[in-house]
Amino acid sequence: MTSTRTGRHRYAARLNAFRASASAGKKPTVAEMIKAAGHVGGLTAADLNYPDHFAFHDGVALARLLAENGMALNGLAMRYYTDPGFAIGAFTNPNPATRRAAIDLTKQGIDTLAEMGGRLMTLWMGQDGFDYAFQADYARMWDDTVAAIADVADHNPAIDISIEYKPNEPRAFALMPDVATTLLALREVGRPNTGVTLDFAHVLYADEMPAHAAHLVSRHSRLLGVHLNDGYGKRDDGLMAGTVHAVQTVELFVELDRAGYDGVIYFDTFPDQSGLDPVEEARTNIRLTERLREVAKVLTGEAALASAIAAQDAAQSQRIVAAALYGA
Amino acid sequence: MTSTRTGRHRYAARLNAFRASASAGKKPTVAEMIKAAGHVGGLTAADLNYPDHFAFHDGVALARLLAENGMALNGLAMRYYTDPGFAIGAFTNPNPATRRAAIDLTKQGIDTLAEMGGRLMTLWMGQDGFDYAFQADYARMWDDTVAAIADVADHNPAIDISIEYKPNEPRAFALMPDVATTLLALREVGRPNTGVTLDFAHVLYADEMPAHAAHLVSRHSRLLGVHLNDGYGKRDDGLMAGTVHAVQTVELFVELDRAGYDGVIYFDTFPDQSGLDPVEEARTNIRLTERLREVAKVLTGEAALASAIAAQDAAQSQRIVAAALYGA
Amino acid sequence: MTSTRTGRHRYAARLNAFRASASAGKKPTVAEMIKAAGHVGGLTAADLNYPDHFAFHDGVALARLLAENGMALNGLAMRYYTDPGFAIGAFTNPNPATRRAAIDLTKQGIDTLAEMGGRLMTLWMGQDGFDYAFQADYARMWDDTVAAIADVADHNPAIDISIEYKPNEPRAFALMPDVATTLLALREVGRPNTGVTLDFAHVLYADEMPAHAAHLVSRHSRLLGVHLNDGYGKRDDGLMAGTVHAVQTVELFVELDRAGYDGVIYFDTFPDQSGLDPVEEARTNIRLTERLREVAKVLTGEAALASAIAAQDAAQSQRIVAAALYGA
Amino acid sequence: MTSTRTGRHRYAARLNAFRASASAGKKPTVAEMIKAAGHVGGLTAADLNYPDHFAFHDGVALARLLAENGMALNGLAMRYYTDPGFAIGAFTNPNPATRRAAIDLTKQGIDTLAEMGGRLMTLWMGQDGFDYAFQADYARMWDDTVAAIADVADHNPAIDISIEYKPNEPRAFALMPDVATTLLALREVGRPNTGVTLDFAHVLYADEMPAHAAHLVSRHSRLLGVHLNDGYGKRDDGLMAGTVHAVQTVELFVELDRAGYDGVIYFDTFPDQSGLDPVEEARTNIRLTERLREVAKVLTGEAALASAIAAQDAAQSQRIVAAALYGA
Repeated sequence: MTSTRTGRHRYAARLNAFRASASAGKKPTVAEMIKAAGHVGGLTAADLNYPDHFAFHDGVALARLLAENGMALNGLAMRYYTDPGFAIGAFTNPNPATRRAAIDLTKQGIDTLAEMGGRLMTLWMGQDGFDYAFQADYARMWDDTVAAIADVADHNPAIDISIEYKPNEPRAFALMPDVATTLLALREVGRPNTGVTLDFAHVLYADEMPAHAAHLVSRHSRLLGVHLNDGYGKRDDGLMAGTVHAVQTVELFVELDRAGYDGVIYFDTFPDQSGLDPVEEARTNIRLTERLREVAKVLTGEAALASAIAAQDAAQSQRIVAAALYGA
Repeated sequence: MTSTRTGRHRYAARLNAFRASASAGKKPTVAEMIKAAGHVGGLTAADLNYPDHFAFHDGVALARLLAENGMALNGLAMRYYTDPGFAIGAFTNPNPATRRAAIDLTKQGIDTLAEMGGRLMTLWMGQDGFDYAFQADYARMWDDTVAAIADVADHNPAIDISIEYKPNEPRAFALMPDVATTLLALREVGRPNTGVTLDFAHVLYADEMPAHAAHLVSRHSRLLGVHLNDGYGKRDDGLMAGTVHAVQTVELFVELDRAGYDGVIYFDTFPDQSGLDPVEEARTNIRLTERLREVAKVLTGEAALASAIAAQDAAQSQRIVAAALYGA
Repeated sequence: MTSTRTGRHRYAARLNAFRASASAGKKPTVAEMIKAAGHVGGLTAADLNYPDHFAFHDGVALARLLAENGMALNGLAMRYYTDPGFAIGAFTNPNPATRRAAIDLTKQGIDTLAEMGGRLMTLWMGQDGFDYAFQADYARMWDDTVAAIADVADHNPAIDISIEYKPNEPRAFALMPDVATTLLALREVGRPNTGVTLDFAHVLYADEMPAHAAHLVSRHSRLLGVHLNDGYGKRDDGLMAGTVHAVQTVELFVELDRAGYDGVIYFDTFPDQSGLDPVEEARTNIRLTERLREVAKVLTGEAALASAIAAQDAAQSQRIVAAALYGA
Repeated sequence: MTSTRTGRHRYAARLNAFRASASAGKKPTVAEMIKAAGHVGGLTAADLNYPDHFAFHDGVALARLLAENGMALNGLAMRYYTDPGFAIGAFTNPNPATRRAAIDLTKQGIDTLAEMGGRLMTLWMGQDGFDYAFQADYARMWDDTVAAIADVADHNPAIDISIEYKPNEPRAFALMPDVATTLLALREVGRPNTGVTLDFAHVLYADEMPAHAAHLVSRHSRLLGVHLNDGYGKRDDGLMAGTVHAVQTVELFVELDRAGYDGVIYFDTFPDQSGLDPVEEARTNIRLTERLREVAKVLTGEAALASAIAAQDAAQSQRIVAAALYGA
């Protein structure tokens, strides 16, 4: 069920954004969240968190729930909560048993994903990093991380392992904070079934230009996931797509097309942070994204823009972009 | 020559942006820069730096050069370069003679401004601040700064003294780094002929939302100057207006209208940083700004937006803004 | 029970740091956390969160638990969790009933505090702010905030209301993000029983120098609370005190002494983020803090340092500071 | 003249820091700056900027001036000022003739370096980068940069080419902004005579931990240069070494020893920014650095620290570090 059937990206839901859909006062169930995401109209895929979303449903049940609500499984995303020891590291934990547990949990996630017919396992290794100087052995953490990623990649070569980087939070420094560090790690890992997931807000606060980060990924690895949202470049703001950096979002779409990215666009946004109705918030995400993708198409064919870029003449290129984007 | 005659803001030139207009290989003269700014078409005002731009011309000559090129004087902006001792502070210098020299130089600038018929003296006290802990006495720097601003304000009560803040550079910490610190200082100064100049890129890297900063200025002081440009919130990028944060630029225009701001829009941009033809770059600045001001007018009258804002419903407000701005 | 009896600051516990002390697998009780904090030896005060920590104990019971473990109540700190509507604002909520609920909850906290014999109510208004341009009316949010703070301050003029600022999180922009904005707000509030709480890590990522922020508070308001910790200036890192910015911590202590601050030093640190034993982590906090306070005392009497500061000669001042701090 | 003869790093001067040594009112000559650096006592090496410092002296004359003042040449550092076209890029310039000119200028620098008996050419490609989205072709800039570095590396395989990264300034985004991007580029370049120069303040505002950055360089390339200074993680502050981040400086020294770094420690500091006497400022740099290196030696042999690090127990490690550093 790839986008190539429709010639367009599919949009995927972040299910936890739909927590507000729970029956009043109760903790939301996965079924309720999937149902709410299905109400949006336009979300045709979803990532599930493993093991969190599988607490009360197995893969078969979840796949059915998704299908009933018009969504296909995009992939799974690991969460390392089940062992409090993970707080100080999953793959980089000082305790080899805990590292092994993190790897085994990931393999279980991979097995579950494969059973569900999925192909994409996203790893945001948020627990892996450090907070202090003289806290951990950097070489050891790198060796352990590279070995772990290779181990999980080898567990099922038909499953893609995509590393999603983020500068910090919950650790003061993530071990994989930015695109280039992630690419260096994947080069050490040296497995073909690996790649990178870009999260727009993470990219911004890693001080990167989204299209440039996407180019580096294409150049050195494979772009397997795109989390679209927006922010102010200081933290993981999780704002609706296109609400702050429209120009950079358009440039990212141009680069995604150039790179032949045919995966989903996953809205990694936090409506609850702003007290928003998640269904309406998702509709705004889709609407703004659709328009910015149109602008990207227009600009892709714009010869005058290509000339300005070749000359690095921003006085011209910004005029062309602004004309296409907002009628300047 | 206020904008109220035309019902629109005038656009002012940053003359030093036109350095590239100099005869090949030579240092550009003020006359050459003014002439180049005049070629843009649309720049009808300019700020002159004092004493820099007066090295070879007096006020009468400069006023005539401006007029010949279709520009009126908006005001003067002080630069504290003439005494190498200013590097460690102008108003906050540890040496009372140097502080006195900075104050006297500012008064000379005020006198020159008055002779030229101008009313706005902008003070960006970039040299005043600190780099290290245990470097300077904060209370002393504050007392000296407040006394100096009061002193120069009293020199000619018909002249407005506008403080332009900037987080850092050339000092690691400016004494006036953000909007609220500047407003606290002006409250201590307690003179009616004072106010604040907002520079969009400075506002961004002071981690402020431009319209909110403008509101605070209106609430506690007077908004006397607006320097329009753009950036990424990490440094004084000096990019062309509307090229990164179009939404926030539009919101600023809505707030400027609400506040009744009728001063100039000064493009504080750095075309040379990007190897741009300053005349073309200024035309792009004007074009994008004009369009974003139109969008601001549309949104100002938009009842659905006012409702969404009253409810703090961003899922609705962002949809309305994106529809007006880029046709989402 | 002021520090003046002992001539030194008391150290206060952040009880939630002691969550790890819970019986295995269970949610920690307030009693368990207080007990664990008592084991540290050196923590003689604590702040309680209202209403969170009062879920199963009333004020009398909590005061007794604290006393049994060698701690006195420093004050209460409000948390606005009880109404999901608070997510989009407590004092700045668009719904007047929710604003009223936040104010009433705060007054209940004040009443509880007074019954317990305490005097300090700390308000970190983390829910109050905005995420998007065109999301909220800045003037309205300011008016509502100022009115609310005045309202709660008037509820019991014998209780001090201290505003603790933080740049962001959970909102993209807090309404009270930095020291000067907080001081502007308190000036509008105009009540004598108000002041400011500085959190070192918040100060760092508000791009402020701690001692300078403390000076501004003394200059314009009252310094009622100090949360000591450390960070990297990008987020609320909650690291152990003195582990990154020792020099700035020492300078803060010098300023606290100059200002006559005799309140507690509250360790607002996050041992769980680094998988640390909270009792050991608290002991490290105390040890490092005690040493840095000694260094501050040495430097306070150092005439050569005063001269260097008067001359703003950092080549000399940094040499003196480094000699006292680390024997350079 | 390696440090291995003396068992310690040599300290190198940033000559431009000694501008204040010029005869009053005149532009300082290279000879005057070298002489002033020689007065410091303890600076036994220097980097010269090419072509700037060669305007009035050839390599032989400069080598002699250095020797007369107790300094040996550490290497040359390129500066791309001679062609105004370089503003928009040296290796990444859109004009192939300008790219060729930048490469040729670098080769001339390499030839001059070789004639002077030096081995290290440092390239800080500050002009190479971008300011806007849709300004330049990222793939083209990368291809051109990689080709240019390979070209200059091949020009003389006996000369090491070291890339010094910096996040921004003068461009909004440098193409080589951080350690990992630089390492990715050098991997593409694939030449043995290449490596990386770490500048502490650049590392901080690239959001990196210095020792971790050094580890990554050792892991993937060669550490050829260390510029020591300090800052606040927001810009290139150029503060004296050890004045803000003493702990991280010590950890860097531990890592440098582990990596067998035997190059110079170059003080890339800006005394003029703080109005400091550059000779005194350099003496403070050396004094603080010497002490922090002693602390690093103590900690290197500390078994309890190694245990704490193996366990990632920061409550213990920070206690040990603080005890060694400042007697906590």
